[in-house]
Order: sequence, then C-alpha cells, then structure tokens
Amino acid sequence: MTLSCLTASAQFGAPRENPKVPSVVADVVEDFKPASTNQGGKQYPMVNSQRMVRAQIKAPEATFVGLDIAGKIYIMTKDENGVWTGTSEPQDEGFHYYQLNIDGASVPDPGSKYYYGASRWGSGIDVPAQDEEFYTVKNVPQGSVNEVYYWSTVTEKMRHGYIYLPAEYYANPTKKFPVLYLQHGMGENETGWSAQGKTGIIMDNLIAEGKAVPFIIYMDNGLDVRRPGDPAPGQGGFGGSRPQGGPGQGGPRRGGFGGFNAFEEVLIKDIIPMVESKYRVIADTEHRAMAGLSMGGMQTHSITLANPTTFAYVGMFSGGTFNTEELKDAADFKKTNKVLFMSAGGRETGMVEGDRSVIKAAENLKGIGINAHSYVSPETAHEWQTWRRSLYQFAQLIFK
Amino acid sequence: MTLSCLTASAQFGAPRENPKVPSVVADVVEDFKPASTNQGGKQYPMVNSQRMVRAQIKAPEATFVGLDIAGKIYIMTKDENGVWTGTSEPQDEGFHYYQLNIDGASVPDPGSKYYYGASRWGSGIDVPAQDEEFYTVKNVPQGSVNEVYYWSTVTEKMRHGYIYLPAEYYANPTKKFPVLYLQHGMGENETGWSAQGKTGIIMDNLIAEGKAVPFIIYMDNGLDVRRPGDPAPGQGGFGGSRPQGGPGQGGPRRGGFGGFNAFEEVLIKDIIPMVESKYRVIADTEHRAMAGLSMGGMQTHSITLANPTTFAYVGMFSGGTFNTEELKDAADFKKTNKVLFMSAGGRETGMVEGDRSVIKAAENLKGIGINAHSYVSPETAHEWQTWRRSLYQFAQLIFK
Repeated sequence: MTLSCLTASAQFGAPRENPKVPSVVADVVEDFKPASTNQGGKQYPMVNSQRMVRAQIKAPEATFVGLDIAGKIYIMTKDENGVWTGTSEPQDEGFHYYQLNIDGASVPDPGSKYYYGASRWGSGIDVPAQDEEFYTVKNVPQGSVNEVYYWSTVTEKMRHGYIYLPAEYYANPTKKFPVLYLQHGMGENETGWSAQGKTGIIMDNLIAEGKAVPFIIYMDNGLDVRRPGDPAPGQGGFGGSRPQGGPGQGGPRRGGFGGFNAFEEVLIKDIIPMVESKYRVIADTEHRAMAGLSMGGMQTHSITLANPTTFAYVGMFSGGTFNTEELKDAADFKKTNKVLFMSAGGRETGMVEGDRSVIKAAENLKGIGINAHSYVSPETAHEWQTWRRSLYQFAQLIFK
Repeated sequence: MTLSCLTASAQFGAPRENPKVPSVVADVVEDFKPASTNQGGKQYPMVNSQRMVRAQIKAPEATFVGLDIAGKIYIMTKDENGVWTGTSEPQDEGFHYYQLNIDGASVPDPGSKYYYGASRWGSGIDVPAQDEEFYTVKNVPQGSVNEVYYWSTVTEKMRHGYIYLPAEYYANPTKKFPVLYLQHGMGENETGWSAQGKTGIIMDNLIAEGKAVPFIIYMDNGLDVRRPGDPAPGQGGFGGSRPQGGPGQGGPRRGGFGGFNAFEEVLIKDIIPMVESKYRVIADTEHRAMAGLSMGGMQTHSITLANPTTFAYVGMFSGGTFNTEELKDAADFKKTNKVLFMSAGGRETGMVEGDRSVIKAAENLKGIGINAHSYVSPETAHEWQTWRRSLYQFAQLIFK
C-alpha cells in the first residue's frame, strides 16, 4: 500500500492551514445537545441530530474565532456579550479531533475533554452513532485498563503503556489468558486505544455477550522509541537500523517515522517478556495476536512478517493489506497464522475499492490458503469510528 | 476549621478576574528548560532555575495574550512573527494549574499536558523541586494504577475510579493487602491523585525502599455523586440528606458542595464492598485507611467520625483538623484509630500557625490519647506539592 491514503488525515501533525468557511446557518435543526466528550458540566460543544457540531467560547476582545474540524475552519460570530458561536457541516458518526482558532492561535476548546492525536493533546468530540451501544459503558462484569511502567533494555529508559485485563482476570485468580498487542496510529500514542478507542468498554461488552473470549490487550507507544545512539526525533532515519533484518517489504521505510522500526525491538525484547512474566498469560504463539490502526497496522504487517512464528492472529485496521506475493513463500507465517484481518472505513476509497482494497486482498489471500477476513466500516473515514468497529469485529474472530 | 484558607485557592472553579501585571524582564537567569509536564516534543512552557515560568504561543492576529498563573495574568509580548512570550515571577516548587488568556478567552496552553482542577481540564506545570526524587519514575518493581468502572446502588449509575495495586499484588497472586481510600479536593476529580499527585510513582518508590508496606489505594470522585431525586448540581443543598445521621460537626454543611455527603453513602455502600470483593484485600478495620486533601480531608473527617469503627488510619492533607472536643467522648473512634495524621503547606498560614494549626491540634489530640501526627510541607501553599509530600509522609505511618 501507499501512504497517500493517510497523508490527508488529521493524524499527521503538520501545521494545517485549513480553509475558512462560513458557519452553517440555514436548515439547521435546533436540537443540539452537549457532546458526550465534554468536560463535566460544560454545555458546549454540542451536536445535533444532523451530526452538526456547534462550538462556543467567550473571547470579548477577539477579532476572529473559528471552529477547526475535519479540514475546515468554520467562522464563528460574536454576540453582544463577547461570546462566539459557530456551527459546522454534518460530520461522520464517531470521534473527531478538532480545535479552536482565536486570532490566529490554534488552541484546545475549554469545553471538551482532551485526547492525544495529530501529535498533540487537544480537543475531541464524539458524534453519536447508530451503533454506539457496543462502546457504551454497561453494568456488565468490568475488566480494567491499567497503566504500566516498565524498564526497556532497548531504549535503556522506563517506558509506559496500558494493559486491559478482562473481568475474569480478577474473578478467577488462577486462569491464564491470551494477549493481543494493539497499536495506535501516526500522531497518536499509547492512550489512544483506551481513550478515544474505548477498548476496555468494547471488550467488557463483547465478553459479557459471549461474542469474544476473555483476553488481555496490551497497548504501547509505537513511535516514541529511541535507542541510545538513534538519531534524535526529526533528524531523519527510521528510528535506527532494523535489528533482525526482516524481509522489509511490508512497512514503510522512509523519513518521518522515527521509532517505527525500533518499536519492533522493544516489542519483542521488552514488552512481550514483561507482559508474559508479570501477568497470567498463555505464553505461546497460538495465544498471541497483534493488530494496529493505520501506522500501527503497518507495524503489525512488518513485525508479524519479520517474526513469522510469534503471532497467530494479525489485524490491520486502515493500515493497508498483505499481498499474495509476500506471503506465497512465507511458509512459517502461513503455518502459524490462524486469522488475517484487514479493514478500512467506507470513505477510505483507496482501501475499499479496486485491486488494492482490503476486500480484494482478502479474496486473494484466501486463494493461497490464508484465513483472511475483510471488513468495511459503513460511511466512516480514516478515523476512530472505523477502528472501534474494526476492533469489535476482530475481537470476535480471535483465540477461538 | 473554616473554609477561608481554601477560598483563595485556584481549586475553586469560579471565573477569575486576575490582575494583569507586566512580564518579568529584569534579573532573569536565561537557563529555561521545557517543563516535565509538557506535551512530548513541545519546547514551551519552560521553567528556569529561579522557578520562573515562561510561556509562548503563536497568535498573529491577537491584541492581548497573557499567562494566567497563581492569581496573576502576566502580559505577554508579540514578536515580528506573531509569537507571544511572557515570563512569570518565581513560583513555588511543584505542580500548578495555569492557563493562557487570548483576547479575553481563557484557554489551555497547547504546549502543556492537561489536568483536572479548578473544575476543568486545563494546563498544568511542574516546577522542579529539591525533593522531586520521591515522585520520579525509577526502575523499581512497578505497581499500576488501574481504571475501574462499577455499578453504584446509591446513584443507580455506573461510576468511575482508579485503583493502585502494588507490584507485589502481581508478583504474589495469593497475598492480600490493606487499602487506603484517598480523595481529591474541590474542583478536582478521581484523576487528580494519580496524575498530578503521582500516587503510583510515590508508592512504588516508597515500597521499593522499604519505607512503606505494600498497600492498595482506591481513588474515586467525591463530588460527582447524585442520587436519584437529589437536587441537580448548582441547585443548592449538600447532595441530599445525610443517610446515617452522623455527628455533622466535622465537615462543611453549606451550598456549593454537591455530592459532599452523598459520597459517604457511595463509599460505604458501593466502593468498599466493590474493592473488597473484586481485589485481594484484608477486609477488616485494621487494614482500612482513609485520607484526602482539602475538601477530601474534610470528607475524611466527616466520614471517619460518622463511621468510627470502619477505618483505623485517618489522614487530612490541608483539610483542617480534628479537635479534642469532638473526639473526647468518641470512644469507638479512639479505640479504633491507630494513626491520625494532619498536614498543611508551610504557606497555608491559617493551618500551620496558632491554636487552630495542625501542629497544635496534634499536640492536643495526643493529650487525650490519640496517636496524632502533624506535618508541614516547607514553603508550599494549598497545592499539589504539599499533598504529594503529605502522602509520602502518611504512607510511611500506616499499616505497620
């Protein structure tokens, strides 16, 4: 796959000069409600039944305030109290990063909670979705998402990740569990899957309904990986030389992906041994999975190819495809793999249409004996609703 | 105690009209470094060896930008590129909430990480402290801070908290542990103790050094507690009637503390049973402690008095004092209590000087047979450095 489908995404943290467009004022249904992602007690931002986002902020001395979402800056207008309000066009269902622009300064909206994406902590908004039940907290047996620090022998520093332990981990103190290693995208970090991805909630609900077997999920930072001697961030390179000399045709090998490859070394040498020694884990290939979104999908591609007998289940969410060329002679990978899952959002046309689509790739891979699956998230783009749904689908296929 | 010592604090989320003062420009030592609380890769805000804070933001069309910290707005100045910079007076050691003001809009600084305080998610900055080693992540056996959802029979909703499990909880799968219930202050929430409080790091370090015994810490939201039928937030009342009819002379009984009392019911009926059934806990009085900062200290006061045989260890950090009047006839409390700890910041003059100080209170309580301790944090105010140090002291006294 190419990166072209990703570079348009808000995931990439380059300064944006989005076009300024008028707020929507006509044909607006006035049934706006505070977003679920708002800070407690904050009325704005709001969303209406048309999935329009309305922001508001007091800035009495400002001369320009804009709502910057999905590639456009909607021009807000000031009332006599110095309060600015503006309304966007309809947004896709699910989670979106956004920000406010006040007289040229791009700042978080004081009304929203903050999420790490586009290489910064900033505002996010959840637009209600028809299928949001699957990521809504319910009174079912609760696992937990746990913050983890560990010593990395590779970077020679303490590192930081999160681990989801299912409810049964606590209820049954002798049982051991399979583990999925789950990675975020470019410009995101180890908090993405649990915060905007709602991983713990999705899993608790799936397990309670009997749709997924209980398993552990470990989430780390796939970019912030610098070994002693690696070039500093932004100085080019790919996070240092590839340690194991894997096939290399899988993932991207170009500038700007600092840590992309070094993460493989941390995962294999530090993370998996730490998880398998600290937690009650079934420490074999058949009970080990890897998946990721976007760049994390590319890392999954590259790492599972380079370590073909380590993971039995592989998932790439908006992260490209495996092709038959690279797998047809990969006997170890084919023998080990039990499920190869590739997904994308329906609006990611490059990934869901034509010969390079996840659908076509799965068909081709089935032809060479791979248990390949594809999934297309309806009417979503390169954003979290696609990946929440992808996890929901993938989790039902693995460790069974 | 009175609330007067608290109302000046940034903890209270009322809109502030802080005075605008010039940035510091003279006698500034130019050894500024990015703050440890910055977002990854962000240069600003910075702190120098004089503990001055320097903020910077690009806002080319703004006419006013200010750095709003510790009760003053420092007027920033614009360069030819539209970048505004300003420097504060020296700040106390430790963590401070702050924000930027752009043409009248109070917004988070895009350079900092965000913390919940002053009733909002907003910017925070950690000013290096002489004793920061005790809350620095080290390569010692790591416990973890875990996110917990649970069903509340009192509010009839899912609630959310955090639990710290020490390293030995994972390493020794049959051992049971004591539990400290630890509460935040007004305008804060259940994230405060683990994020700005650094609870998990402090405990891992203390346990590794053998200064504290391994114990569990549970942290919940002491304000966001609304039972069915309770008045909505901001409609007055104290979060409903007091369920157990306790003595009532301890905590505040006035408007604006929605949830203050209802929290007692959630703690006793929901949280403690949940923790004691889900985790490996020594479920008796001698292995149960409660502490809190500021409003959380007042809740500790009120709840431990109303439930005198439930907790053996009690801590109030900048949360006032127990007095001999209320304890002299409290036979159950006196028989049960093993340590009563009261602390405050050295700059909180009302709490560290005179007859109502934590020092005097501890002396008086010793006189009636209580094992009372006081602690004064050097040169800190009603802020997190005081409470980090208080936890560090208190943790060494309990469950021994």
